[in-house]
Amino acid sequence: MTKEEEAVKIERLKVNYKTLEEFKKFKEYGIQELSMLEDLQENIIEDNSESPFYGIYFADKLVARMSLYQKDAKYDLYFNPQQTYFELWKLEVLPNYQFKGFGKALVDFAKSFGLPIKTNSRMKSKEFWEKMGFQTVDYDMNRDLGQNPLVWCPEGVSLQKTNS
Amino acid sequence: MTKEEEAVKIERLKVNYKTLEEFKKFKEYGIQELSMLEDLQENIIEDNSESPFYGIYFADKLVARMSLYQKDAKYDLYFNPQQTYFELWKLEVLPNYQFKGFGKALVDFAKSFGLPIKTNSRMKSKEFWEKMGFQTVDYDMNRDLGQNPLVWCPEGVSLQKTNS
Repeated sequence: MTKEEEAVKIERLKVNYKTLEEFKKFKEYGIQELSMLEDLQENIIEDNSESPFYGIYFADKLVARMSLYQKDAKYDLYFNPQQTYFELWKLEVLPNYQFKGFGKALVDFAKSFGLPIKTNSRMKSKEFWEKMGFQTVDYDMNRDLGQNPLVWCPEGVSLQKTNS
Repeated sequence: MTKEEEAVKIERLKVNYKTLEEFKKFKEYGIQELSMLEDLQENIIEDNSESPFYGIYFADKLVARMSLYQKDAKYDLYFNPQQTYFELWKLEVLPNYQFKGFGKALVDFAKSFGLPIKTNSRMKSKEFWEKMGFQTVDYDMNRDLGQNPLVWCPEGVSLQKTNS
């Protein structure tokens, strides 16, 4: 680990107008962000509520983020034994801040909880995920549909057998 | 409907090496296609097996496709009453064949079964889906995670209430 990587601080992002404004710089801006904005406007959530987003600030600017959500064991279709796991999505580093280890720092943070992780990769990012220790699952159409799932298993965890 | 649109023929695609070769021209080539290729190579599926893909040929060339899969009612988290529905993904028209109504023809075909349809849109395609009569759902993180779901409801069908 280089000095630069050691200094990286992962923060749980607050849902407020400032954060949502920063989210607009990320490519994967979608219904999740729009829904947060609506909830803020309608006072369904408070300014500064905790979100499923974690991020890295660089000189007061949000430059990397991911969304992380704990799924209940009863919905686990991937891991053996069946267990609580994380869904990780919207991992993204702004163009000018890539290749500094920010993506890796976020993934390492997610791994640090010791739970298995599932993500849905774009084909171009497969190499990154493999470097992070993620593996491809056997594609099961009923379960995976339009996704390209990649998973990370902590020690002692393996994959469920699929029907296909 | 113009003459051109009337003439469009939707075909259920066969899984064989020729089809898989044509799939390589589409952007959304992923684990689903790789898994089909592997199954063919290992003789798990036969050449000419029926696939979840439907497509449109133009002068013997596959120019548009979608994947369509019937989900069992017990997995339905979107529609009211809870029912069997279609998941639609990988709707794509090759660049030189866009704006000829091929995308609409595929969606109309999917609608013709009379079952509700769910798709996961990219933000840029939202306008297209709205023109096709699809609507945004209330984002529910536990259900939707990294997706941007859009749904089409036939008459008499509405949306389930979410917790959020």
